[in-house]
Amino acid sequence: MNFNEIQGGVCAPNGFKASGVHCGIRKNRTKNDLALIYSEVPASAAAVYTTNLVKGAPLVVTKNNLASSGGIAQAVICNSGNANTCNANGIEIAEAMCGLVGQALKLKSENVLVGSTGVIGQPLDITPIKNGIPELVSKLSSDPAGSDLACEGIMTTDTRKKEIAVEFTLGKTSCKIGAIAKGSGMIHPNMATMLIFITTDAAISSELLRAALSETVPDTFNMISVDGDTSTNDMTAILANGTAGNAKITERDSDFEVFKEALNFICVKLCRMLAGDGEGATKLLECHVNGASDKQTAKTVAKSVICSTLFKAAMFGADANWGRVLCAIGYSGAKVDVTKIDVAFESEAGRIEVCKNGAGIDFSEDEAKKILLKPEIKILISLNDSEAEATAWGCDLTYDYVKINGDYRT
Amino acid sequence: MNFNEIQGGVCAPNGFKASGVHCGIRKNRTKNDLALIYSEVPASAAAVYTTNLVKGAPLVVTKNNLASSGGIAQAVICNSGNANTCNANGIEIAEAMCGLVGQALKLKSENVLVGSTGVIGQPLDITPIKNGIPELVSKLSSDPAGSDLACEGIMTTDTRKKEIAVEFTLGKTSCKIGAIAKGSGMIHPNMATMLIFITTDAAISSELLRAALSETVPDTFNMISVDGDTSTNDMTAILANGTAGNAKITERDSDFEVFKEALNFICVKLCRMLAGDGEGATKLLECHVNGASDKQTAKTVAKSVICSTLFKAAMFGADANWGRVLCAIGYSGAKVDVTKIDVAFESEAGRIEVCKNGAGIDFSEDEAKKILLKPEIKILISLNDSEAEATAWGCDLTYDYVKINGDYRT
Repeated sequence: MNFNEIQGGVCAPNGFKASGVHCGIRKNRTKNDLALIYSEVPASAAAVYTTNLVKGAPLVVTKNNLASSGGIAQAVICNSGNANTCNANGIEIAEAMCGLVGQALKLKSENVLVGSTGVIGQPLDITPIKNGIPELVSKLSSDPAGSDLACEGIMTTDTRKKEIAVEFTLGKTSCKIGAIAKGSGMIHPNMATMLIFITTDAAISSELLRAALSETVPDTFNMISVDGDTSTNDMTAILANGTAGNAKITERDSDFEVFKEALNFICVKLCRMLAGDGEGATKLLECHVNGASDKQTAKTVAKSVICSTLFKAAMFGADANWGRVLCAIGYSGAKVDVTKIDVAFESEAGRIEVCKNGAGIDFSEDEAKKILLKPEIKILISLNDSEAEATAWGCDLTYDYVKINGDYRT
Repeated sequence: MNFNEIQGGVCAPNGFKASGVHCGIRKNRTKNDLALIYSEVPASAAAVYTTNLVKGAPLVVTKNNLASSGGIAQAVICNSGNANTCNANGIEIAEAMCGLVGQALKLKSENVLVGSTGVIGQPLDITPIKNGIPELVSKLSSDPAGSDLACEGIMTTDTRKKEIAVEFTLGKTSCKIGAIAKGSGMIHPNMATMLIFITTDAAISSELLRAALSETVPDTFNMISVDGDTSTNDMTAILANGTAGNAKITERDSDFEVFKEALNFICVKLCRMLAGDGEGATKLLECHVNGASDKQTAKTVAKSVICSTLFKAAMFGADANWGRVLCAIGYSGAKVDVTKIDVAFESEAGRIEVCKNGAGIDFSEDEAKKILLKPEIKILISLNDSEAEATAWGCDLTYDYVKINGDYRT
């Protein structure tokens, strides 16, 4: 289903405000490093987290708060420049962040969610955050500019802001859903994702909100990889404040399906933004697998291809080295019949078949080059086995990835 | 156990000859692209292969030949420049290679093993190989130069030849074992390895030779990763021609243990050579994990760390970003208690502790930099749980890796 995109990111839905400031966590930069999202009324809230055994303190605190509050939240605070992970006092600091926001906004701390992103293992000083919160609160705005400020506040090595919002209709009521996202490196989510904060004014029970989120993430954010590294701080959180006035969604009816479609739509858009802005990336890679015996096989194959560093490097060089696609399928662990695999590359410059029945076919290298020099490349894989399909998103591996990560901390 | 290293590679053991020529598979290079190893008498032979579902035709043919011959071989032919994989006529060509060598050396084809390495999915023309075999056979030599020529013949993007040989004693008989290896990219072996050919003049039954090889590979070649890509053409083959005159090893006695120690010794040395010469690498990374609850946990943790592209990029930049070590341990899937983990870095410049009980400790960045600027870095991880340990080998991720793989085919 297609939805109308609108402006405003997390501020597009009714009753939400956001802001961002530079409080000084990042010493040498003027970029915002602290973000706040606020719902004027209590909202149903749900979140999914990284599967990394090393979990950032903010994720632990967020999870605790959602449990204490019964899935009700009214604000999200998030800093960049420091992940607040592997620090002895991490929980204490993350709780202090919620406490300070709660004081300033007259909320219980358990109704505040918290996220952090940046370097792991460096103590996070609460002082700049404490000093920054009054300005952060005073700048809260329901204008698109509020979402912009917050989006900047959660960016690390991202080169572009990632915001989206769409309208959809539940019954006869117009509702909105919007999001901001960050994520550029250490991206290989698994059952969770990079930092993504979603707001909606639709009325939906906490239970179904959790269901919608956990059913959408496996096919969207969990199908992105920039570098195969699953972060310690990945989190996707959603707040639904119900101010649109629709009949509250409390069962798996057609309204729930529409809500999920809208959620899926913005998540897919964000996936493309996140992968395309992978650290150092010059190209978005979108791998479609069809004809698989089952969905998991399709997903495993698609993800293995976009994770192959050899294939990613070939895409950087616009080299139609499809042997690396076959190689990545072969070591993926998926059970496939190699002699039935077809591969094609596609971009706005056209489409070219390069492998048929698991073996090379004659193709024009010039034509392939022309296709692969474009910024968005589709890798189309037909397993010719059955009907299941999946999509994964990634990016090329470039000199700049190495540069960015060769000396990230200084 | 330590062994005396000697010269001669695969020609060091008695009764083996080798050679290499440039036959023209690589059009634009003068480097040798065809190698031959020959035992003057029939030898017990064993091999292990890639677990990639896409298997190069030469591996299929080698496996068939070892089955037909009951584990007896007398020659190994191997080309570089073309993997002979994903080609419709791959099996036919690989069989033809064995047949031509058999004719020239008066052997049955089933006593010839075959390997190929290079680009996947481009038909391999038999003509240059056919034309090259007479010179290849005429150049066969038992001098170290013979091993050198063969070693060059199997190299692809390797920048250094990888040869080794040692002496060991079985009973009162002096025996030798030697090897040549290639492998630089697409290295992430799993139950098998890159191309490694090992010769020994020890007398050992085929059965125990297979046992020794398959018990050594999991702790050596399967613990290397350059880029996480498991090749379609990985193979390790060993020939034991028994000409040293030792009492033939036919059971798991002390001679078998000495033989395995010698085999393990050369495999570990080759691991260090292979990882240190990973594509674009400037540094060898050796990750030691101790204090694990069991061996598999130690291996999983060690391999996850040396596979992390983020950590590899940090090592390129000599950046003591130990948070990425913890992150990689966390997503490895190993069950560990994060709050008990200690991490240190070590090189010839010294040793520095950077993480204690899963949290950062104060350390001198200057001192760390000095240590990490050296070409061989040890990452020392203590899980402080129990007694099991493991080692994995890898290399840093550099601009040159991207350059080499951005346009490998042209």
